[in-house]
Amino acid sequence: TMSYSTPASSSNLVFRQLFEKESSTYTYLLADASHPDKPALLIDPVDKMVDRDISLIQELGLKLIYAMNTHVHADHVTGTGLLKKKVPGVKSVISTASGSKADLHVEPGDKIYIGDFFLEVRATPGHTSGCVTYVTGEGSGQPQPRMAFTGDALLIRGCGRTDFQGGSSQQLYNSVHSQIFTLPKDTLLYPAHDYRGFTVTTVGEEMQYNPRLTKDEDTFKSIMENLKLAYPKMIDIAVPANMVCGLQDVEAKAS
Amino acid sequence: TMSYSTPASSSNLVFRQLFEKESSTYTYLLADASHPDKPALLIDPVDKMVDRDISLIQELGLKLIYAMNTHVHADHVTGTGLLKKKVPGVKSVISTASGSKADLHVEPGDKIYIGDFFLEVRATPGHTSGCVTYVTGEGSGQPQPRMAFTGDALLIRGCGRTDFQGGSSQQLYNSVHSQIFTLPKDTLLYPAHDYRGFTVTTVGEEMQYNPRLTKDEDTFKSIMENLKLAYPKMIDIAVPANMVCGLQDVEAKAS
Ligand SMILES: [Fe+2]
Ligand SMILES: [Fe+2]
Repeated sequence: TMSYSTPASSSNLVFRQLFEKESSTYTYLLADASHPDKPALLIDPVDKMVDRDISLIQELGLKLIYAMNTHVHADHVTGTGLLKKKVPGVKSVISTASGSKADLHVEPGDKIYIGDFFLEVRATPGHTSGCVTYVTGEGSGQPQPRMAFTGDALLIRGCGRTDFQGGSSQQLYNSVHSQIFTLPKDTLLYPAHDYRGFTVTTVGEEMQYNPRLTKDEDTFKSIMENLKLAYPKMIDIAVPANMVCGLQDVEAKAS
Repeated sequence: TMSYSTPASSSNLVFRQLFEKESSTYTYLLADASHPDKPALLIDPVDKMVDRDISLIQELGLKLIYAMNTHVHADHVTGTGLLKKKVPGVKSVISTASGSKADLHVEPGDKIYIGDFFLEVRATPGHTSGCVTYVTGEGSGQPQPRMAFTGDALLIRGCGRTDFQGGSSQQLYNSVHSQIFTLPKDTLLYPAHDYRGFTVTTVGEEMQYNPRLTKDEDTFKSIMENLKLAYPKMIDIAVPANMVCGLQDVEAKAS
Protein backbone atom coordinates (compact mmCIF):
# COMPACT_ATOMS: atom_id res chain seq x y z
CA THR A 1 0.00 0.00 0.00
CA MET A 2 1.11 3.52 -0.80
CA SER A 3 2.67 5.71 1.85
CA TYR A 4 1.40 9.23 1.59
CA SER A 5 3.17 12.52 1.96
CA THR A 6 1.61 13.96 5.04
CA PRO A 7 4.04 16.68 6.12
CA ALA A 8 6.07 15.83 9.20
CA SER A 9 4.59 17.22 12.35
CA SER A 10 6.08 18.40 15.57
CA SER A 11 4.81 21.56 17.18
CA ASN A 12 8.34 22.82 17.77
CA LEU A 13 9.95 22.02 14.45
CA VAL A 14 10.64 24.93 12.14
CA PHE A 15 11.10 23.57 8.65
CA ARG A 16 11.61 25.37 5.35
CA GLN A 17 12.48 24.13 1.91
CA LEU A 18 14.28 26.71 -0.23
CA PHE A 19 15.05 26.57 -3.95
CA GLU A 20 17.80 27.91 -6.19
CA LYS A 21 16.58 27.98 -9.77
CA GLU A 22 19.76 27.94 -11.83
CA SER A 23 21.12 24.68 -10.41
CA SER A 24 17.67 23.48 -9.24
CA THR A 25 19.12 23.02 -5.75
CA TYR A 26 17.08 22.63 -2.58
CA THR A 27 18.40 24.02 0.69
CA TYR A 28 16.71 23.00 3.95
CA LEU A 29 16.31 24.98 7.15
CA LEU A 30 15.50 23.14 10.37
CA ALA A 31 15.26 24.61 13.85
CA ASP A 32 13.95 23.82 17.31
CA ALA A 33 11.54 26.60 18.29
CA SER A 34 11.07 25.23 21.82
CA HIS A 35 14.65 25.89 22.85
CA PRO A 36 15.40 29.42 24.17
CA ASP A 37 18.13 29.95 21.52
CA LYS A 38 16.02 28.51 18.68
CA PRO A 39 19.05 26.69 17.26
CA ALA A 40 18.98 26.08 13.52
CA LEU A 41 20.87 24.32 10.77
CA LEU A 42 21.00 24.60 7.00
CA ILE A 43 21.54 21.63 4.71
CA ASP A 44 23.14 22.26 1.29
CA PRO A 45 23.13 26.06 1.24
CA VAL A 46 24.03 27.75 -2.09
CA ASP A 47 26.59 30.58 -2.11
CA LYS A 48 24.49 33.10 -4.02
CA MET A 49 21.40 32.51 -1.87
CA VAL A 50 23.14 33.06 1.45
CA ASP A 51 21.71 36.55 1.96
CA ARG A 52 18.18 35.24 1.45
CA ASP A 53 18.83 32.43 3.91
CA ILE A 54 20.36 34.70 6.56
CA SER A 55 17.52 37.19 6.33
CA LEU A 56 14.92 34.43 6.75
CA ILE A 57 16.81 33.03 9.75
CA GLN A 58 16.94 36.49 11.33
CA GLU A 59 13.25 37.19 10.69
CA LEU A 60 12.29 33.87 12.27
CA GLY A 61 14.43 34.70 15.29
CA LEU A 62 16.63 31.62 14.86
CA LYS A 63 20.27 31.10 15.69
CA LEU A 64 22.21 29.33 12.94
CA ILE A 65 24.56 26.72 14.41
CA TYR A 66 25.45 24.36 11.55
CA ALA A 67 25.87 24.81 7.81
CA MET A 68 25.99 21.27 6.48
CA ASN A 69 26.55 19.58 3.16
CA THR A 70 25.38 16.15 2.09
CA HIS A 71 28.39 15.92 -0.24
CA VAL A 72 30.92 17.85 -2.32
CA HIS A 73 28.59 19.36 -4.92
CA ALA A 74 29.75 19.64 -8.52
CA ASP A 75 26.98 21.92 -9.76
CA HIS A 76 27.04 24.87 -7.36
CA VAL A 77 29.32 26.44 -4.79
CA THR A 78 28.26 25.74 -1.22
CA GLY A 79 27.17 28.65 0.97
CA THR A 80 29.05 27.35 4.02
CA GLY A 81 32.07 29.63 3.58
CA LEU A 82 29.98 32.78 3.21
CA LEU A 83 27.73 31.74 6.10
CA LYS A 84 30.79 31.33 8.34
CA LYS A 85 31.97 34.81 7.32
CA LYS A 86 28.59 36.50 7.77
CA VAL A 87 27.21 34.70 10.83
CA PRO A 88 29.74 34.43 13.65
CA GLY A 89 29.99 31.02 15.27
CA VAL A 90 28.47 28.96 12.45
CA LYS A 91 30.19 25.60 12.04
CA SER A 92 30.51 23.93 8.64
CA VAL A 93 29.75 20.20 8.61
CA ILE A 94 30.54 17.48 6.08
CA SER A 95 31.42 13.78 6.17
CA THR A 96 34.96 12.63 6.91
CA ALA A 97 34.69 10.43 3.81
CA SER A 98 34.24 13.52 1.62
CA GLY A 99 37.88 14.44 2.19
CA SER A 100 36.95 18.11 2.31
CA LYS A 101 37.66 20.85 4.80
CA ALA A 102 35.04 21.68 7.46
CA ASP A 103 34.78 22.62 11.12
CA LEU A 104 33.08 19.38 11.96
CA HIS A 105 33.52 16.03 10.23
CA VAL A 106 30.76 13.49 10.70
CA GLU A 107 30.79 9.71 10.50
CA PRO A 108 27.99 7.19 9.96
CA GLY A 109 25.95 6.88 13.15
CA ASP A 110 26.82 10.37 14.42
CA LYS A 111 23.98 12.54 15.68
CA ILE A 112 23.85 16.29 15.06
CA TYR A 113 21.68 18.06 17.61
CA ILE A 114 19.80 21.34 17.34
CA GLY A 115 17.95 21.74 20.62
CA ASP A 116 15.99 18.56 21.18
CA PHE A 117 15.98 17.52 17.54
CA PHE A 118 18.75 15.52 15.95
CA LEU A 119 19.83 14.33 12.56
CA GLU A 120 21.41 10.92 12.23
CA VAL A 121 24.22 10.48 9.69
CA ARG A 122 23.95 7.58 7.23
CA ALA A 123 26.68 6.80 4.69
CA THR A 124 25.16 6.72 1.19
CA PRO A 125 28.17 6.72 -1.18
CA GLY A 126 27.84 6.09 -4.90
CA HIS A 127 27.15 9.52 -6.39
CA THR A 128 30.34 10.65 -4.64
CA SER A 129 32.44 8.56 -2.30
CA GLY A 130 31.63 10.86 0.63
CA CYS A 131 27.85 11.27 0.25
CA VAL A 132 25.75 11.05 3.40
CA THR A 133 22.03 11.17 4.09
CA TYR A 134 20.85 13.08 7.15
CA VAL A 135 17.79 11.51 8.79
CA THR A 136 15.68 13.01 11.57
CA GLY A 137 15.68 11.07 14.82
CA GLU A 138 13.50 8.22 15.91
CA GLY A 139 11.49 8.41 19.07
CA SER A 140 9.10 10.65 20.93
CA GLY A 141 9.49 14.37 20.31
CA GLN A 142 11.21 13.81 16.95
CA PRO A 143 9.33 14.76 13.75
CA GLN A 144 6.78 12.18 12.69
CA PRO A 145 6.96 10.87 9.96
CA ARG A 146 10.75 10.94 9.77
CA MET A 147 12.48 13.12 7.19
CA ALA A 148 15.59 12.17 5.23
CA PHE A 149 17.79 14.62 3.34
CA THR A 150 19.23 12.43 0.66
CA GLY A 151 21.50 14.82 -1.24
CA ASP A 152 22.07 13.36 -4.71
CA ALA A 153 21.98 9.73 -3.61
CA LEU A 154 18.24 9.44 -4.17
CA LEU A 155 16.34 11.99 -6.24
CA ILE A 156 12.57 12.01 -6.81
CA ARG A 157 12.03 9.20 -9.35
CA GLY A 158 15.76 9.33 -10.05
CA CYS A 159 19.26 9.38 -8.55
CA GLY A 160 22.54 11.23 -8.91
CA ARG A 161 25.04 10.33 -11.64
CA THR A 162 27.82 7.92 -10.72
CA ASP A 163 30.50 8.75 -13.29
CA PHE A 164 32.52 11.39 -11.39
CA GLN A 165 33.96 12.15 -7.95
CA GLY A 166 34.53 8.57 -6.92
CA GLY A 167 31.04 7.57 -8.05
CA SER A 168 30.04 3.93 -8.29
CA SER A 169 26.71 2.59 -9.48
CA GLN A 170 27.13 -0.56 -7.40
CA GLN A 171 27.78 1.49 -4.26
CA LEU A 172 24.83 3.80 -4.97
CA TYR A 173 22.49 0.85 -5.43
CA ASN A 174 23.60 -0.68 -2.15
CA SER A 175 23.46 2.67 -0.32
CA VAL A 176 19.89 3.39 -1.33
CA HIS A 177 18.67 -0.15 -0.64
CA SER A 178 20.43 -0.57 2.70
CA GLN A 179 20.28 2.97 4.14
CA ILE A 180 17.19 4.66 2.65
CA PHE A 181 14.73 1.96 1.59
CA THR A 182 15.04 0.43 5.08
CA LEU A 183 13.49 3.55 6.65
CA PRO A 184 9.72 3.51 7.41
CA LYS A 185 7.71 3.77 4.19
CA ASP A 186 6.15 7.08 5.19
CA THR A 187 9.57 8.72 5.66
CA LEU A 188 9.61 11.99 3.72
CA LEU A 189 12.54 12.19 1.32
CA TYR A 190 13.95 15.61 0.53
CA PRO A 191 16.59 15.58 -2.24
CA ALA A 192 19.28 18.16 -3.05
CA HIS A 193 17.75 18.73 -6.48
CA ASP A 194 14.67 18.33 -8.55
CA TYR A 195 14.42 19.34 -12.18
CA ARG A 196 10.69 18.85 -12.77
CA GLY A 197 9.17 20.82 -9.92
CA PHE A 198 8.64 18.05 -7.38
CA THR A 199 9.42 19.03 -3.82
CA VAL A 200 9.21 15.81 -1.79
CA THR A 201 8.64 12.08 -2.05
CA THR A 202 8.44 9.12 0.35
CA VAL A 203 10.33 5.86 0.82
CA GLY A 204 7.19 3.95 -0.18
CA GLU A 205 6.80 5.92 -3.38
CA GLU A 206 10.41 5.48 -4.50
CA MET A 207 10.39 1.77 -3.64
CA GLN A 208 7.41 1.43 -5.95
CA TYR A 209 8.05 3.99 -8.70
CA ASN A 210 11.73 4.94 -8.91
CA PRO A 211 12.49 4.02 -12.53
CA ARG A 212 16.11 3.11 -11.76
CA LEU A 213 16.25 1.85 -8.20
CA THR A 214 13.32 -0.53 -8.44
CA LYS A 215 15.36 -2.53 -10.97
CA ASP A 216 17.77 -5.33 -10.02
CA GLU A 217 21.39 -4.35 -9.42
CA ASP A 218 22.70 -5.38 -12.82
CA THR A 219 19.98 -3.51 -14.70
CA PHE A 220 20.64 -0.46 -12.52
CA LYS A 221 24.37 -0.60 -13.28
CA SER A 222 23.71 -0.82 -16.99
CA ILE A 223 21.23 2.09 -16.85
CA MET A 224 23.84 4.21 -15.07
CA GLU A 225 26.62 3.21 -17.46
CA ASN A 226 24.57 4.20 -20.49
CA LEU A 227 23.34 7.65 -19.43
CA LYS A 228 25.93 9.43 -21.64
CA LEU A 229 25.68 12.63 -19.64
CA ALA A 230 27.57 15.79 -20.58
CA TYR A 231 30.59 16.87 -18.53
CA PRO A 232 29.14 18.86 -15.60
CA LYS A 233 29.32 22.59 -16.43
CA MET A 234 30.31 23.85 -12.99
CA ILE A 235 32.47 20.94 -11.81
CA ASP A 236 35.90 22.52 -12.29
CA ILE A 237 34.89 25.57 -10.28
CA ALA A 238 32.52 24.01 -7.77
CA VAL A 239 34.48 20.97 -6.62
CA PRO A 240 37.72 22.75 -5.64
CA ALA A 241 35.67 25.49 -3.94
CA ASN A 242 33.52 23.00 -2.10
CA MET A 243 36.53 21.01 -0.92
CA VAL A 244 37.36 24.07 1.19
CA CYS A 245 33.82 25.06 2.31
CA GLY A 246 33.17 27.60 -0.44
CA LEU A 247 34.61 29.99 -2.94
CA GLN A 248 36.29 32.60 -0.80
CA ASP A 249 39.05 30.27 0.39
CA VAL A 250 39.85 29.44 -3.21
CA GLU A 251 40.03 33.14 -4.04
CA ALA A 252 42.43 33.62 -1.16
CA LYS A 253 44.63 30.79 -2.40
CA ALA A 254 44.57 32.08 -5.96
CA SER A 255 45.75 35.55 -4.98
CA THR B 1 5.70 36.49 18.93
CA MET B 2 6.64 34.73 15.73
CA SER B 3 4.48 31.99 14.32
CA TYR B 4 6.58 29.19 12.95
CA SER B 5 6.15 27.12 9.88
CA THR B 6 5.48 23.70 11.26
CA PRO B 7 3.99 21.79 8.35
CA ALA B 8 0.27 21.16 8.65
CA SER B 9 -0.52 17.77 10.05
CA SER B 10 -3.37 15.39 9.55
CA SER B 11 -2.68 11.73 9.12
CA ASN B 12 -5.03 11.53 6.14
CA LEU B 13 -4.05 14.63 4.22
CA VAL B 14 -2.02 14.10 1.08
CA PHE B 15 -0.33 17.37 0.24
CA ARG B 16 2.16 18.22 -2.49
CA GLN B 17 3.59 21.50 -3.65
CA LEU B 18 4.68 21.46 -7.32
CA PHE B 19 6.70 24.08 -9.20
CA GLU B 20 6.84 25.30 -12.80
CA LYS B 21 10.14 27.06 -13.37
CA GLU B 22 9.46 29.32 -16.34
CA SER B 23 6.60 31.25 -14.75
CA SER B 24 7.69 30.35 -11.18
CA THR B 25 4.19 28.99 -10.55
CA TYR B 26 3.22 26.72 -7.67
CA THR B 27 0.53 24.12 -8.17
CA TYR B 28 -0.92 22.36 -5.12
CA LEU B 29 -2.28 18.85 -4.81
CA LEU B 30 -4.53 17.97 -1.87
CA ALA B 31 -6.33 14.71 -1.25
CA ASP B 32 -8.09 12.76 1.47
CA ALA B 33 -6.35 9.40 1.82
CA SER B 34 -8.89 8.12 4.36
CA HIS B 35 -11.75 8.08 1.87
CA PRO B 36 -12.07 4.92 -0.30
CA ASP B 37 -11.88 6.99 -3.52
CA LYS B 38 -8.97 9.13 -2.30
CA PRO B 39 -10.54 12.24 -3.82
CA ALA B 40 -8.10 14.96 -4.85
CA LEU B 41 -7.97 18.50 -6.15
CA LEU B 42 -5.36 20.63 -7.88
CA ILE B 43 -5.03 24.37 -7.31
CA ASP B 44 -3.54 26.47 -10.13
CA PRO B 45 -2.34 23.73 -12.47
CA VAL B 46 -0.12 24.80 -15.41
CA ASP B 47 -0.92 23.52 -18.91
CA LYS B 48 2.55 22.22 -19.75
CA MET B 49 2.90 20.40 -16.42
CA VAL B 50 -0.37 18.49 -16.67
CA ASP B 51 1.27 15.18 -17.61
CA ARG B 52 3.55 15.40 -14.57
CA ASP B 53 0.57 16.14 -12.35
CA ILE B 54 -1.57 13.33 -13.77
CA SER B 55 1.20 10.79 -13.41
CA LEU B 56 1.79 11.77 -9.77
CA ILE B 57 -1.94 11.52 -9.06
CA GLN B 58 -2.07 8.07 -10.65
CA GLU B 59 0.99 6.83 -8.77
CA LEU B 60 -0.46 8.00 -5.47
CA GLY B 61 -3.70 6.19 -6.29
CA LEU B 62 -5.78 9.37 -6.09
CA LYS B 63 -8.91 10.36 -7.97
CA LEU B 64 -8.84 13.93 -9.30
CA ILE B 65 -12.18 15.64 -8.77
CA TYR B 66 -11.51 19.38 -9.04
CA ALA B 67 -9.06 21.47 -11.07
CA MET B 68 -9.30 24.90 -9.48
CA ASN B 69 -7.89 28.34 -10.12
CA THR B 70 -7.40 31.14 -7.63
CA HIS B 71 -7.85 33.65 -10.47
CA VAL B 72 -7.48 34.28 -14.20
CA HIS B 73 -3.70 34.05 -14.52
CA ALA B 74 -1.89 36.41 -16.90
CA ASP B 75 1.48 34.66 -16.85
CA HIS B 76 0.66 31.07 -17.77
CA VAL B 77 -2.13 29.02 -19.29
CA THR B 78 -4.11 27.03 -16.76
CA GLY B 79 -4.02 23.24 -16.94
CA THR B 80 -7.75 22.89 -16.25
CA GLY B 81 -8.73 22.42 -19.89
CA LEU B 82 -6.15 19.70 -20.51
CA LEU B 83 -6.99 18.00 -17.23
CA LYS B 84 -10.67 17.88 -18.22
CA LYS B 85 -9.66 16.31 -21.54
CA LYS B 86 -7.26 13.78 -20.07
CA VAL B 87 -9.02 12.79 -16.84
CA PRO B 88 -12.70 12.02 -17.33
CA GLY B 89 -15.03 13.62 -14.81
CA VAL B 90 -12.72 16.39 -13.59
CA LYS B 91 -14.57 19.62 -12.87
CA SER B 92 -12.94 23.02 -13.38
CA VAL B 93 -13.56 25.53 -10.60
CA ILE B 94 -13.16 29.32 -10.45
CA SER B 95 -14.92 32.22 -8.76
CA THR B 96 -18.10 33.70 -10.22
CA ALA B 97 -16.46 37.11 -9.90
CA SER B 98 -13.70 36.04 -12.32
CA GLY B 99 -16.20 36.15 -15.17
CA SER B 100 -14.58 33.10 -16.71
CA LYS B 101 -15.92 29.81 -17.91
CA ALA B 102 -15.79 26.76 -15.59
CA ASP B 103 -17.85 23.77 -14.56
CA LEU B 104 -18.31 25.09 -11.08
CA HIS B 105 -18.41 28.74 -10.02
CA VAL B 106 -17.70 29.47 -6.37
CA GLU B 107 -18.73 32.37 -4.16
CA PRO B 108 -17.28 33.68 -0.91
CA GLY B 109 -18.24 31.34 1.93
CA ASP B 110 -18.62 28.29 -0.31
CA LYS B 111 -16.98 25.06 0.80
CA ILE B 112 -15.32 22.66 -1.64
CA TYR B 113 -15.13 19.13 -0.24
CA ILE B 114 -12.71 16.34 -1.06
CA GLY B 115 -13.65 13.48 1.25
CA ASP B 116 -13.71 14.86 4.78
CA PHE B 117 -11.51 17.86 4.01
CA PHE B 118 -12.83 21.12 2.70
CA LEU B 119 -11.55 24.39 1.37
CA GLU B 120 -13.40 27.57 2.24
CA VAL B 121 -13.61 30.30 -0.42
CA ARG B 122 -12.63 33.85 0.57
CA ALA B 123 -12.90 36.79 -1.82
CA THR B 124 -9.50 38.52 -2.07
CA PRO B 125 -9.84 40.87 -5.06
CA GLY B 126 -7.25 43.53 -5.90
CA HIS B 127 -4.73 41.71 -8.08
CA THR B 128 -7.69 40.79 -10.30
CA SER B 129 -11.32 41.53 -9.57
CA GLY B 130 -12.12 37.81 -9.28
CA CYS B 131 -9.25 36.60 -7.05
CA VAL B 132 -10.11 34.20 -4.27
CA THR B 133 -8.10 32.55 -1.49
CA TYR B 134 -8.87 28.92 -0.67
CA VAL B 135 -8.48 28.14 3.05
CA THR B 136 -8.54 24.70 4.66
CA GLY B 137 -11.37 24.15 7.10
CA GLU B 138 -11.55 24.90 10.78
CA GLY B 139 -12.39 22.21 13.26
CA SER B 140 -11.39 18.72 14.26
CA GLY B 141 -10.11 16.48 11.48
CA GLN B 142 -9.09 19.46 9.33
CA PRO B 143 -5.36 20.17 8.82
CA GLN B 144 -3.73 21.93 11.75
CA PRO B 145 -2.37 24.60 11.35
CA ARG B 146 -4.70 25.80 8.62
CA MET B 147 -3.39 26.32 5.10
CA ALA B 148 -4.36 29.17 2.78
CA PHE B 149 -3.77 29.19 -0.98
CA THR B 150 -3.52 32.88 -1.66
CA GLY B 151 -2.98 32.97 -5.42
CA ASP B 152 -1.38 36.33 -6.28
CA ALA B 153 -3.19 38.28 -3.56
CA LEU B 154 -0.44 37.69 -1.02
CA LEU B 155 3.01 36.51 -2.07
CA ILE B 156 5.88 35.71 0.31
CA ARG B 157 7.14 39.16 1.40
CA GLY B 158 5.21 40.62 -1.51
CA CYS B 159 1.90 40.72 -3.38
CA GLY B 160 0.55 40.58 -6.91
CA ARG B 161 0.54 43.66 -9.15
CA THR B 162 -2.66 45.71 -9.26
CA ASP B 163 -2.39 47.50 -12.61
CA PHE B 164 -4.21 45.02 -14.87
CA GLN B 165 -7.32 42.81 -15.01
CA GLY B 166 -9.49 44.99 -12.81
CA GLY B 167 -6.73 45.32 -10.24
CA SER B 168 -7.01 47.84 -7.41
CA SER B 169 -4.41 48.52 -4.75
CA GLN B 170 -7.08 49.69 -2.32
CA GLN B 171 -9.05 46.47 -2.79
CA LEU B 172 -5.94 44.32 -2.44
CA TYR B 173 -4.97 46.05 0.79
CA ASN B 174 -8.42 45.50 2.23
CA SER B 175 -8.60 41.90 0.99
CA VAL B 176 -5.33 40.89 2.64
CA HIS B 177 -6.07 42.69 5.90
CA SER B 178 -9.67 41.50 6.23
CA GLN B 179 -9.48 37.99 4.73
CA ILE B 180 -5.92 36.71 5.26
CA PHE B 181 -4.38 38.59 8.20
CA THR B 182 -7.46 37.67 10.27
CA LEU B 183 -6.58 33.96 10.05
CA PRO B 184 -4.65 32.36 12.95
CA LYS B 185 -1.03 33.53 12.95
CA ASP B 186 0.32 30.04 12.39
CA THR B 187 -1.76 29.58 9.20
CA LEU B 188 0.54 28.38 6.43
CA LEU B 189 0.34 30.60 3.35
CA TYR B 190 0.99 29.01 -0.02
CA PRO B 191 1.17 31.52 -2.89
CA ALA B 192 0.74 30.96 -6.64
CA HIS B 193 4.29 32.18 -7.25
CA ASP B 194 7.64 32.78 -5.69
CA TYR B 195 10.60 34.20 -7.55
CA ARG B 196 13.30 33.79 -4.89
CA GLY B 197 12.94 30.12 -3.96
CA PHE B 198 10.70 30.46 -0.90
CA THR B 199 8.02 27.79 -0.65
CA VAL B 200 5.79 28.85 2.24
CA THR B 201 5.19 31.57 4.82
CA THR B 202 2.76 32.20 7.69
CA VAL B 203 0.21 34.87 8.54
CA GLY B 204 2.38 35.92 11.51
CA GLU B 205 5.45 36.33 9.35
CA GLU B 206 3.73 38.42 6.69
CA MET B 207 2.02 40.61 9.29
CA GLN B 208 5.46 41.37 10.65
CA TYR B 209 7.71 41.35 7.60
CA ASN B 210 5.74 41.90 4.39
CA PRO B 211 7.46 45.01 3.02
CA ARG B 212 4.28 46.30 1.37
CA LEU B 213 1.34 45.10 3.42
CA THR B 214 2.72 46.10 6.81
CA LYS B 215 2.52 49.73 5.62
CA ASP B 216 -0.58 51.93 6.03
CA GLU B 217 -3.05 51.94 3.18
CA ASP B 218 -1.88 55.18 1.57
CA THR B 219 1.76 54.13 1.59
CA PHE B 220 0.75 50.76 0.13
CA LYS B 221 -1.19 52.48 -2.66
CA SER B 222 1.71 54.70 -3.52
CA ILE B 223 4.13 51.73 -3.53
CA MET B 224 1.84 49.87 -5.93
CA GLU B 225 1.37 52.93 -8.17
CA ASN B 226 5.11 53.41 -8.54
CA LEU B 227 6.22 49.87 -9.38
CA LYS B 228 6.58 50.71 -13.09
CA LEU B 229 6.34 47.07 -14.11
CA ALA B 230 6.72 45.89 -17.69
CA TYR B 231 3.64 44.77 -19.63
CA PRO B 232 3.17 41.07 -18.74
CA LYS B 233 4.77 38.93 -21.45
CA MET B 234 2.11 36.23 -21.57
CA ILE B 235 -1.00 38.28 -20.82
CA ASP B 236 -2.44 38.46 -24.35
CA ILE B 237 -2.24 34.69 -24.72
CA ALA B 238 -2.91 33.58 -21.16
CA VAL B 239 -5.91 35.70 -20.23
CA PRO B 240 -8.16 34.80 -23.18
CA ALA B 241 -7.17 31.13 -22.76
CA ASN B 242 -7.78 31.18 -19.04
CA MET B 243 -11.17 32.84 -19.46
CA VAL B 244 -12.25 29.55 -21.07
CA CYS B 245 -10.40 27.07 -18.81
CA GLY B 246 -7.32 26.67 -21.00
CA LEU B 247 -5.78 26.83 -24.41
CA GLN B 248 -7.62 24.16 -26.37
CA ASP B 249 -10.94 26.04 -26.40
CA VAL B 250 -9.16 29.06 -27.81
CA GLU B 251 -7.57 26.93 -30.51
CA ALA B 252 -10.99 25.58 -31.39
CA LYS B 253 -12.39 29.10 -31.69
CA ALA B 254 -9.43 30.30 -33.74
CA SER B 255 -9.83 27.54 -36.31
FE1 LIG C 1 26.02 16.24 -6.49
FE1 LIG D 1 -1.91 36.52 -11.43
